Amino acid sequence: MPSKRFFLPASRSEDLMKLDEIEVGPDMYNHMIKSMRMQKGDCCLLLDGRGHQGKVRIEEIDRDRESAVLKVINTEDAAGEPDTEIFIAQALAKKKKVETVIQKSTEIGARGFYPFSSRHAVVKLKADRVDKRLDRWRKIIREAARQSERGIRPDIFRPIDLDGLMDLSRDFEVVLLARAREARHTIKELSREKVVRKGRKILLIIGPEGGLAEKEIEKLISLKNCYDISLGPRILRTETAGPVLSGIILHEVGEMQ
Amino acid sequence: MPSKRFFLPASRSEDLMKLDEIEVGPDMYNHMIKSMRMQKGDCCLLLDGRGHQGKVRIEEIDRDRESAVLKVINTEDAAGEPDTEIFIAQALAKKKKVETVIQKSTEIGARGFYPFSSRHAVVKLKADRVDKRLDRWRKIIREAARQSERGIRPDIFRPIDLDGLMDLSRDFEVVLLARAREARHTIKELSREKVVRKGRKILLIIGPEGGLAEKEIEKLISLKNCYDISLGPRILRTETAGPVLSGIILHEVGEMQ
Repeated sequence: MPSKRFFLPASRSEDLMKLDEIEVGPDMYNHMIKSMRMQKGDCCLLLDGRGHQGKVRIEEIDRDRESAVLKVINTEDAAGEPDTEIFIAQALAKKKKVETVIQKSTEIGARGFYPFSSRHAVVKLKADRVDKRLDRWRKIIREAARQSERGIRPDIFRPIDLDGLMDLSRDFEVVLLARAREARHTIKELSREKVVRKGRKILLIIGPEGGLAEKEIEKLISLKNCYDISLGPRILRTETAGPVLSGIILHEVGEMQ
Repeated sequence: MPSKRFFLPASRSEDLMKLDEIEVGPDMYNHMIKSMRMQKGDCCLLLDGRGHQGKVRIEEIDRDRESAVLKVINTEDAAGEPDTEIFIAQALAKKKKVETVIQKSTEIGARGFYPFSSRHAVVKLKADRVDKRLDRWRKIIREAARQSERGIRPDIFRPIDLDGLMDLSRDFEVVLLARAREARHTIKELSREKVVRKGRKILLIIGPEGGLAEKEIEKLISLKNCYDISLGPRILRTETAGPVLSGIILHEVGEMQ
């Protein structure tokens, strides 16, 4: 397996499985040829971000047009993708904390992220800051996906409010709401009952530092597919809960081994 | 349960279970009376750092001597302590990364930390920096222990080298060596075989960013009680592995619910 790994840019929608060769433009040219100093004939692993990866060889380099032609040698399903799709709905928190959640959870195997605003959240994200913040979050996710050898780049969506979160929850098979105290369910029990199982599409809701308001919790657990879960007697910070719960769920369904 | 929580300083060795009242000096006086503005008659939760906690009430405040007398109202075993003792041997890495490991793993329930130097480690800690770094690490652990409602403050020890790590490993019932690839065991399998089980004293070895050298791995897995374990197809950063594995182990033995 070549040690250098590249993702096709998010703007490209090619399916690597269906290509013999692929031409890449200035963004990848700069990364592969200028930064990584790859040369004609060198091989690397290319991921299409759609769950496929392949060994490719540099066939042509056009320095004027800043482009390169890559010959696809072989392709396969990317190894780093779990069948179980965990999306994390993370309450907005201080910048560094959200960044920790998305970086670590991407490494562990989360499929995507929905930031949301809640009553007790310390941080409110101003509308004019959202695009800039999304760009930064996407960059962190892309880099974590590359390093951890994911097959796709997890998605991150625009921040939503509690109503948006309620609507979103209806699209998932299972919604798990992390609670510091008084939770009625555990991952082990939900796993025994096959509520949490391999291949499911799971939304994991993580409250803010101050916790969700009682009314917010009531609303969410009134949803038919929502289970409030305990993480035990130790109180995890908001940025710790998502990565650790993702790891525990993927372990439980047999996708961390 | 009172919402304010305090640990007795590490220098105090009292067993809260055996006391009717306790006098605290300037360090706690400053924290309780000056910073938190508590007054005579106020109650709080006091942890002795030995696994016990109790509700105490401020009986006397002596502003000249900067001391206070606390009446012990009731005591119990601290709720936040798992029976399973996980110690993390963490390869030295960049400052922030080690801090992430000890902060997050303390929240999750690790019992202590052994930093160690290895061949491929990017960071070597100079001897004259060790004491300062230990002080900082202890402060991070203490704060994480308090916030996460642990019953004890996890320990952190002076950095050791690979020989020190080999010696240390012999004192543990089980040693788990996290490997990115080619591991022969999984936590699930070790749990089925009762190698990983509730109440055990486990050493978890996490290599540096560059990975452990082959020779280092060979030495460690030659130990009778050492099992190299896989974390699945996604490659976790050095600072992600310890917290996530601690969470998975505590989940597996039933102490994250």
